[in-house]
Amino acid sequence: MSGKLYGVGVGPGDPELITIKAHRILQSCPVVAYPAPDSGQSFARSIVAEYLSAEQIELPIIVPMRVERFPAAQVYDEASENIAAHLDAGRDVVVLCEGDPFFYGSFMYVYERLAERYDCEVVPGVSSIMTGAAMSGIPLAARNDVLTILPGPLPDDELRARINAADALVIMKVGRHLARIRTLMGEMNLLDKAVYLERVSLAEQRTMRLADMTDETAPYFSMITIYKGAEPWIDTANMNVTKYD
Amino acid sequence: MSGKLYGVGVGPGDPELITIKAHRILQSCPVVAYPAPDSGQSFARSIVAEYLSAEQIELPIIVPMRVERFPAAQVYDEASENIAAHLDAGRDVVVLCEGDPFFYGSFMYVYERLAERYDCEVVPGVSSIMTGAAMSGIPLAARNDVLTILPGPLPDDELRARINAADALVIMKVGRHLARIRTLMGEMNLLDKAVYLERVSLAEQRTMRLADMTDETAPYFSMITIYKGAEPWIDTANMNVTKYD
Repeated sequence: MSGKLYGVGVGPGDPELITIKAHRILQSCPVVAYPAPDSGQSFARSIVAEYLSAEQIELPIIVPMRVERFPAAQVYDEASENIAAHLDAGRDVVVLCEGDPFFYGSFMYVYERLAERYDCEVVPGVSSIMTGAAMSGIPLAARNDVLTILPGPLPDDELRARINAADALVIMKVGRHLARIRTLMGEMNLLDKAVYLERVSLAEQRTMRLADMTDETAPYFSMITIYKGAEPWIDTANMNVTKYD
Repeated sequence: MSGKLYGVGVGPGDPELITIKAHRILQSCPVVAYPAPDSGQSFARSIVAEYLSAEQIELPIIVPMRVERFPAAQVYDEASENIAAHLDAGRDVVVLCEGDPFFYGSFMYVYERLAERYDCEVVPGVSSIMTGAAMSGIPLAARNDVLTILPGPLPDDELRARINAADALVIMKVGRHLARIRTLMGEMNLLDKAVYLERVSLAEQRTMRLADMTDETAPYFSMITIYKGAEPWIDTANMNVTKYD
């Protein structure tokens, strides 16, 4: 009998922000796969490192770090075949995913290759967008707000049109697009309403008004939130930054 | 010294989908507050019932069930003062919130009243939108998709314009708006791409093509997702519904 494939969200970074279900599955699977850069540590693995045991077989999925982290089809073809070999041998495999597997998550590339061939379960995780809201003290969306999620790599014209139409929005994957997006926000008179966040829930987390973030680039796991409504709690000038502990 | 106020997301419904952090805080607080209807059980409390102990003081926040669950200011004024009395007496208080506290969560109404007066921490939770994607086998957003979150109570004209502009979208709080939204989807030729989901991650979960959902109304905790892209895995006709166990 084939093993079962799990795609598990491990949350935004704090090991305590994984679910009880993810923790259970993680410890029950003999094989653990995760995305990893060609040099340096896997972020997904680092989140759950304390929950892993030496008996587990680890399968890093080496995704070369390009300018954009767009996955090479070949990387996922090969990784999926490696995973399939374990499933064929009857071993359950858990694939780790930062945040949530189906919200811009890399698990999708394994899922589209294997979900029809094997029993597969996707376990949702805490997303960075909800975590960013918690950390900055600024709600994502309330009542009948429309919330828009935008990838930072989109061109200026599209960002501008989408931002104009939104009540509340999150720009993901800011990374090397930081300076360009900050300029755009300035042109749109939104700098005072924009908050910059990076590595939310980790010890090295940073949250600040976008106006105060003067770096040219940001890490891949960074985002900008803008709340255009007039709720009393939205006051980036006196930002109530929840101290993380 | 005053107690600390926690706003804790308890996830979409499955008790295993709360985080390790939420679990720890929940068990460490002598006072547990949660929204409750004027008749029947509190959904938020039911999610964590197995983790509560008889020693904990419970503070239900009775929110009268209106057509829309728009909070009465008076309810939250009174609830906040009840919570404040415990905080003043040095007792930590955890306020439970279905899903995530800052994503259309009722904790915001306590937060805006108490966060400036007391030490407050918001703990993010797994959202129903990520859970719905996991349960239906259909990703929320990939690569450079723009994701739009729409509240179902919005009027037709606004829904139509927002849906036209979106790549991928989730309509939340479908409830009594189901028939109206289904008609709109039919007019927009999107019935084949729309998925209906209710009570995701619970034993009574239902996920199906919107075209197959013929009821006139839905529970409050229901949603519709539409993925307008052309990814190979998006095939509602042969929907790969992950069996929940």
